Amino acid sequence: LFVRLQTSKENDWKESLMYSAAAAQKKIDQKTKPLGALGELESLALQLCHIQQSLEPIVDPARAIIFAADHGVADEGVSLFPKAVTTQMVQNFVAGGAAISVMARTFGVALEVVDVGVASDFDRKLSIIHQKVAHGSHNLLHTAALSPDQLVQALGVGAQRAVDAYKSGIRTLVLGEMGIANTTSAALLICAYTGLSPELIVGAGTGVSGPHLTHKISIVQRALARVDGKNLAPRELLAEFGGLEIAALTGAMIEAHSLAQIVIVDGFIASAAALAAVKIHPPCRANMVFAHQSAERGHHAALQALQAKPLLQLGLRLGEGSGAMLALPLLRAAGSIMCDMASFEAAGVSQA
Amino acid sequence: LFVRLQTSKENDWKESLMYSAAAAQKKIDQKTKPLGALGELESLALQLCHIQQSLEPIVDPARAIIFAADHGVADEGVSLFPKAVTTQMVQNFVAGGAAISVMARTFGVALEVVDVGVASDFDRKLSIIHQKVAHGSHNLLHTAALSPDQLVQALGVGAQRAVDAYKSGIRTLVLGEMGIANTTSAALLICAYTGLSPELIVGAGTGVSGPHLTHKISIVQRALARVDGKNLAPRELLAEFGGLEIAALTGAMIEAHSLAQIVIVDGFIASAAALAAVKIHPPCRANMVFAHQSAERGHHAALQALQAKPLLQLGLRLGEGSGAMLALPLLRAAGSIMCDMASFEAAGVSQA
Repeated sequence: LFVRLQTSKENDWKESLMYSAAAAQKKIDQKTKPLGALGELESLALQLCHIQQSLEPIVDPARAIIFAADHGVADEGVSLFPKAVTTQMVQNFVAGGAAISVMARTFGVALEVVDVGVASDFDRKLSIIHQKVAHGSHNLLHTAALSPDQLVQALGVGAQRAVDAYKSGIRTLVLGEMGIANTTSAALLICAYTGLSPELIVGAGTGVSGPHLTHKISIVQRALARVDGKNLAPRELLAEFGGLEIAALTGAMIEAHSLAQIVIVDGFIASAAALAAVKIHPPCRANMVFAHQSAERGHHAALQALQAKPLLQLGLRLGEGSGAMLALPLLRAAGSIMCDMASFEAAGVSQA
Repeated sequence: LFVRLQTSKENDWKESLMYSAAAAQKKIDQKTKPLGALGELESLALQLCHIQQSLEPIVDPARAIIFAADHGVADEGVSLFPKAVTTQMVQNFVAGGAAISVMARTFGVALEVVDVGVASDFDRKLSIIHQKVAHGSHNLLHTAALSPDQLVQALGVGAQRAVDAYKSGIRTLVLGEMGIANTTSAALLICAYTGLSPELIVGAGTGVSGPHLTHKISIVQRALARVDGKNLAPRELLAEFGGLEIAALTGAMIEAHSLAQIVIVDGFIASAAALAAVKIHPPCRANMVFAHQSAERGHHAALQALQAKPLLQLGLRLGEGSGAMLALPLLRAAGSIMCDMASFEAAGVSQA
């Protein structure tokens, strides 16, 4: 049973054995290595096969997409950094000086920066995707962060970036975000979706501690109390607590599923978006590769709620898609093992 | 205080601030990210700076060097695979079909395969480094695996590969091995150097379990008993229990230190070699980056003895340098962050 598959190049097709989970397992078990010796890289390879319904998964080209937006709740003093840093970091991304910029160059990945809701107005000539839905979200302490219409627009911006990537032949989305105060927004979403208490989920973010952390927790508690007893649907919770960049991430993750794209999920904030995406559209979980266990307090709980075992444990807590980018080489290795590694038979190697 | 540093290109120099640990810490703390937000990638970046005594560490070009040899103890039936697999896998490495071959291509790294003691004779035209010291080691159950002269030769083969890499401008050695039965040899070295009992250290290797594993443990116990009370020096223990490929790895690791090369240490067997190297010449520990925590039972204890916290935890147990290769992109990212990421001041980003 053979199918024709498009490779990463246009008009370039190859024949492939028809995919099934059993066929993929059989293929990897015949590679020249002790059974299971590549550990989690093997599970990863099988997931890539499943996402693309192919025995020859293709990881590249990948694209890093960073959604940026400001947060009304920043006015409550939940971050160590001033709100202006969202704007400044977008400029740093484009100038090539941020961690994600440097890593993207190192790994040969194009970087797309999307303004989905930064408070300041960028020069239209700045080479970012200008899709500002609003000048930041509302202050979620007092009201829903996003209006129903803003939620639809932000989800749409994310979905559109996945579609654009698809049209460009992109196989893998490395998703990230920037937005001062967005660990507060992400913590709220995780609390709301899991039912866990803010004390377990709210963490240091950019580095708050002591009374400052207590204050951040109290903001989250009060915001949660605002919707207490309302029994809101997953989408409604996203509007209540999600920033514009988180909603855009959610939209990209949902759309990526329908496009059979591989999605690498970064840390705390991206995982909150992943939780929203899975609550809204459960099948999209299948396309998600979880990059890392971050140092942010509530990340472990978010990953557990997603039944996710992340690839890396490096104590990262930066965002920007930096952890997702660091996991990309593991996907490349897993894909190439499935495609290019010899079988015992082909290599003339004796079996156990 | 400036020094001139050669870059990866010949006759290409750049000025750099003089290295000190404090200067490196200060440099990374000024990058556009919350303090410490890149977690273990930051410690790694600082280690690379220390190894090269530079604030602009250079990771590439890297070279993967795989030392292959056979083991007399394979005759005791300690592996699931026949001894012929060592030879067959060397051919698979060269043909490009093994896991390490595929990963090396994926990550753009040259692969060098060294016959330091495979039992069969290879065609001299096979594009490997022909440095056979013997047709396999002696059976360590009954006698020392290596004669004093063989030990010197095998250490020398490894040292020579580090020197050759240095002359080729290689900055990073990705070190691996192939040798049926070498988890038995490695387990013995770890027991001998740490004093831990074989039950804690001997593991599944290629996949032995049940009575087969009990047999493997008993072989290690009996071999250890052979040297009981002799109070041997680290080098003598390496001759007693080390295979030729393990001694070559040890030689490469010791030499790499004097050449200021970065050494990426793979899994169980490479860690046994690292332990030997550090016992023989403690300063060489500084140049070792530990790639991963393998699934092999005794690896954790070996890493603890080396005071090493590995970068990856992927349940790998393949060898060949495959885990070391998977860690290389993290070194590339760490190096590029140190060299290319913007400071708050340069990027015009507000600080906390």
